[in-house]
Amino acid sequence: MNWGNQYQRNETARQAILAAALEVCRDMGYAATSIEAIARRAEVGKQTIYRWWPSKGLLLLDALQTRAGETTTFPDTGDIVADMAGQIHAVGRLFSHPELAPVVRAILAGRQSDPAVAERFLGELLEPRRTSAEHRLTLAVERGELPPEPGPAHLIELLYAPLYYRLLVTHEPLDATYVEAHLAAVFAVVRRH
Amino acid sequence: MNWGNQYQRNETARQAILAAALEVCRDMGYAATSIEAIARRAEVGKQTIYRWWPSKGLLLLDALQTRAGETTTFPDTGDIVADMAGQIHAVGRLFSHPELAPVVRAILAGRQSDPAVAERFLGELLEPRRTSAEHRLTLAVERGELPPEPGPAHLIELLYAPLYYRLLVTHEPLDATYVEAHLAAVFAVVRRH
Repeated sequence: MNWGNQYQRNETARQAILAAALEVCRDMGYAATSIEAIARRAEVGKQTIYRWWPSKGLLLLDALQTRAGETTTFPDTGDIVADMAGQIHAVGRLFSHPELAPVVRAILAGRQSDPAVAERFLGELLEPRRTSAEHRLTLAVERGELPPEPGPAHLIELLYAPLYYRLLVTHEPLDATYVEAHLAAVFAVVRRH
Repeated sequence: MNWGNQYQRNETARQAILAAALEVCRDMGYAATSIEAIARRAEVGKQTIYRWWPSKGLLLLDALQTRAGETTTFPDTGDIVADMAGQIHAVGRLFSHPELAPVVRAILAGRQSDPAVAERFLGELLEPRRTSAEHRLTLAVERGELPPEPGPAHLIELLYAPLYYRLLVTHEPLDATYVEAHLAAVFAVVRRH
């Protein structure tokens, strides 16, 4: 009986593959990244990778989710601006991360050629965060922390869309200074309703 | 001397090629669009196209510019909300146009494989509109039509980014009803600053 050891070996291999995938993508770009190059970097056989992931897109998506994992939950400290700020800063860090940002860009840009990966990105990374943000904002409206207009759905767009716009369109910086100014613009605005 | 006629023939051919490029792209998708298919549809030789455009990307960009041409200038009626609304609605129409929206998406998504086309899109379509919007908003601040905070640069992001976000990320509708609600959210917000 060494099920525990086998599980441990699998988990070590999985982590090595996830890290290798991000490194190869960073060094070679998404288009040139191959399962073969990732296997070489992780020092595992190609078959080991294919046992868990059918394509490089889904492997990179998993790698992204592992790293972006902590950003889903919204704290509820009673201060809506502080609570949203933590999340928006986390998205800003993800979108300016030297290894992760190119993966997000490639997944969204490759939607036509690989719709399954883009749909999973939207369904598993973006949607849960939007839903969670919407709950937190709705609570804030109910408590009178925020005015009812513009409603949570519009507020979410005003909060998130500029980050995607910089990531995908203008490539302008997404550092903490920018995110602070962005939050100040949206919430100053909202509080004066 | 029939320089005039030659010019006229060239112009007719150019217009036929621009229209054919959009039709082929709409019917076959950007990736499958080829100069050959465009030439067939426009009933011209491939060489005629190559004489004016070195690649399908630059040809489609020109087609886009021809159609999007009227949206650059901002009127100055003294009513900043109405003046911006015209422009934002025009962008909404462009981004929900059945022939043009896929071209914008493909150009921005294909940035890694064809950076020249994406850079020209940004430099020739996006930047002039941003600059022109910034002038109009700066004037509005100077006249006291708008508060000084958030400044024109932030306002432009809040106005435009959600349209790009819907076009590129969520694919949610960009119809007139949405654009109206979006404008109301941003300006209600701004006027309370």
